[in-house]
Amino acid sequence: MAQKQPAEEKDNLGVTVTRKEDFSKWYLEVVRKGGFKDQRTPIKGFDVIMPWGYAVWESLTSIYDGLLKEKGFTNCYFPMLIPESFIEKEKEHFSGFAAETANVTEVGGVKLNEELVIRPTSETIMYHMFSKWVRSHRDLPLRISQWCNIVRWDTKVTKPFIRDREFLWNEVHTAHATLEDAMKQIEDYVYICDRFHEELAMAALVLQRTENDKFPGAEFSLAYDTLMQDGKVIQGPGGHFLGQNFSRPFSITFMQESGKREHVWQTCLGMTTRQIGGMIMQHGDDKGAVLPPRVAPVQAAIVPIIFKGREGAVMQKARQTRDALLRAGIRAQLDERDYSAGYKFNDWELRGVPVRIEIGPRDVEAGEMVAVKRNDGKKVKLKLGDARGVAALLAAVQKEMLQDSRKALKENIRDAVTMDELKKSVSKGGFTRTNWCGSEECEDHVKDKTGGATIRGTLYGKSEKTFSECVHCGKKARHVVYVAKAY
Amino acid sequence: MAQKQPAEEKDNLGVTVTRKEDFSKWYLEVVRKGGFKDQRTPIKGFDVIMPWGYAVWESLTSIYDGLLKEKGFTNCYFPMLIPESFIEKEKEHFSGFAAETANVTEVGGVKLNEELVIRPTSETIMYHMFSKWVRSHRDLPLRISQWCNIVRWDTKVTKPFIRDREFLWNEVHTAHATLEDAMKQIEDYVYICDRFHEELAMAALVLQRTENDKFPGAEFSLAYDTLMQDGKVIQGPGGHFLGQNFSRPFSITFMQESGKREHVWQTCLGMTTRQIGGMIMQHGDDKGAVLPPRVAPVQAAIVPIIFKGREGAVMQKARQTRDALLRAGIRAQLDERDYSAGYKFNDWELRGVPVRIEIGPRDVEAGEMVAVKRNDGKKVKLKLGDARGVAALLAAVQKEMLQDSRKALKENIRDAVTMDELKKSVSKGGFTRTNWCGSEECEDHVKDKTGGATIRGTLYGKSEKTFSECVHCGKKARHVVYVAKAY
Repeated sequence: MAQKQPAEEKDNLGVTVTRKEDFSKWYLEVVRKGGFKDQRTPIKGFDVIMPWGYAVWESLTSIYDGLLKEKGFTNCYFPMLIPESFIEKEKEHFSGFAAETANVTEVGGVKLNEELVIRPTSETIMYHMFSKWVRSHRDLPLRISQWCNIVRWDTKVTKPFIRDREFLWNEVHTAHATLEDAMKQIEDYVYICDRFHEELAMAALVLQRTENDKFPGAEFSLAYDTLMQDGKVIQGPGGHFLGQNFSRPFSITFMQESGKREHVWQTCLGMTTRQIGGMIMQHGDDKGAVLPPRVAPVQAAIVPIIFKGREGAVMQKARQTRDALLRAGIRAQLDERDYSAGYKFNDWELRGVPVRIEIGPRDVEAGEMVAVKRNDGKKVKLKLGDARGVAALLAAVQKEMLQDSRKALKENIRDAVTMDELKKSVSKGGFTRTNWCGSEECEDHVKDKTGGATIRGTLYGKSEKTFSECVHCGKKARHVVYVAKAY
Repeated sequence: MAQKQPAEEKDNLGVTVTRKEDFSKWYLEVVRKGGFKDQRTPIKGFDVIMPWGYAVWESLTSIYDGLLKEKGFTNCYFPMLIPESFIEKEKEHFSGFAAETANVTEVGGVKLNEELVIRPTSETIMYHMFSKWVRSHRDLPLRISQWCNIVRWDTKVTKPFIRDREFLWNEVHTAHATLEDAMKQIEDYVYICDRFHEELAMAALVLQRTENDKFPGAEFSLAYDTLMQDGKVIQGPGGHFLGQNFSRPFSITFMQESGKREHVWQTCLGMTTRQIGGMIMQHGDDKGAVLPPRVAPVQAAIVPIIFKGREGAVMQKARQTRDALLRAGIRAQLDERDYSAGYKFNDWELRGVPVRIEIGPRDVEAGEMVAVKRNDGKKVKLKLGDARGVAALLAAVQKEMLQDSRKALKENIRDAVTMDELKKSVSKGGFTRTNWCGSEECEDHVKDKTGGATIRGTLYGKSEKTFSECVHCGKKARHVVYVAKAY
């Protein structure tokens, strides 16, 4: 983790604006100065994920991959290039991605007969293969996971991690013998994503999207919406029930026990590097990122405080402390860089390391060390090398961050009955609960009248009782929906 | 790992040809039936890496990534699409890849101003960024690693893992303040690759390539050549000393302590999914793949032998054994599939699992189990649940496989003084040591006269004494070189 900082950033450490002053600028500075991403690349939206950012991604992938394996998934790797005719097979799917695809038309300067699309998602190429793999009910369920890069050439604004043109992700795809079994798969997705968000210390609303907003080609979609500190929400992982919408055009059929041929039922789920951006925007403070301990590549950064002539004892105790923490399974790092202690404090705060440990000559004399919690800045004195004490602090940080996130989410869900109330509530940020008749027309009106907030959907798997008429047309409401502005 | 086999393959288990009858067909069958790859994709050379093959890749990446981190590398992720002008900046580099690049010319149906190349390797985009990151000698050395997909559109034959158009790889890139420091980096590459090959139980020759055969843009290249059972060799990881060939066109400069500006010295190293193919072709036998224990996703497959009415006791002991092995850190799997024991034996042999454990009713009565070593078929009786015994067998398999590989390599290096001797030796397969004047003309003649064998290079870091004149022109020889046919 001891990666070097670009020289110019060494001279310019620390975030120069507060979240209140300019949330967007604050975010861009944390992303760049915290070592998450470098955007100074030749093509907009194709960034470099820097060592610290990539190490966070390694934490996320390790947690998520473990959850997938627990639920019976195995990893595969499918071709990145897909014949355009594949994508066109499912009309709704195609129309959802056609404007965003990057197409390979030439190889070695020679024109190809058929254009190839860089995967914007892998349904079509995967399901082409599923049709070869699935023969009988004994081949089902099929649960496939893939870690790869994705290109979606958004022509609108890009934002690092949040809206990239190339990003990294995991996509899982399943095939089932029955609708019921496919529906149970969706429950597994909820289990996986709930657990995942707990590790990220992020409270989320699990919302079923409207017809208008579902994944292209899906019967229905659910997604994890999390709240940022500027009041806008970010969509995290999304799970989709595909029914037989893809198994028909791709002819994925199997022989039932009865001997009858049937099309499989399918689902899919995606999780992306966007999650890193969401964590920064939800947990960060004016000093930089605040990473939950389960995710932080370095959980405890040990900063020795050196005075001339007394380095020896401090460094010895600092090394012993590091070794004790490592032995206890804590991702500890001793910061031996040739910078001042103050510089190092700022640097680890900017990166979001959950516990900083300071060891100076006086601490050594007292047999103590100072541990500072990143989430609230509280200082605790511990015995030198006390790994249990540090582990307890890390557990506390993790727990507090999740509690804070849950509290912030709860406090930022308000009810609105009239359009005026809705507009006022939306202007405060967060989610607003309101009532909706279910028509696309009223959905569009909500967006227009609130200056861009959208119906994010209904609580997944919970039917909430409407508390008034439709917020726009005043007719009988069918759903309680959550409205918010989103990235 | 309990992934399902495509139905058609269930009916068609086992390799239908021996290595002697048709090595190429044998390999393709092991790759497909062993669950490593499926090639029935729409574009030649863009295959699916299947669950078992991908799990092997996960083992390889975990080992290799650990070695890189030990040597100070951190992972990053760079854009997959590179402006064509970047690749053109280094002439030799460009000419090496121009014929093989897949170009993106359109986005959402609209033509781009500048064509973008899908990375055939990432020197150019990385070094563009290095020029922004490196300012002073304190920023050096810079050691960056990347795991990603690569496209090289070979128009010739493709062969799964060995010659794919899309493959997965790791590439590391470094920048140093001095030539000496960059040369030391090459020593680290040798350490990393030596250790890596030991884990794969593969003996290798570390050869410095000829001028003609080096990496496009490098000062010199070294590569790990390993021997396949058909007598041909495969190039594994390759390390390259780039000198200042890229730092000049990409303007990667730094301020020396003296205050003088200087261009950095660079190196790079690559390792790909090709390694999986090499392992299969080197270690496999007529029953299928033989995986070294350090790499095998399942190290011990437990097959219960069930007779009607006596399932209970056998299954109980089989589960206890699995749990005991898992507790001991052995990657064990209990095969509870609804197939015959014979089918399961074949299946695990095909996949290359190093130890198979059989537990039947008589074994349970005797308190025993039978362990079968995949590499030599030897059967050993162990106490039921004896994890130490299984661990010892796994260690023995690993050791024997490496010894066998070293022996095979040693026995397949022969000396030749005359072209006739060289031709005869080449026809037997393996490496032939001969003497070479160093001219490209003689290098070409060797290839012509031996029916396609090439000078693979000189032993890296060891100067061998020539034992005759140049094998072609008869003039004074400057190098002892290794000649072989290669994939």
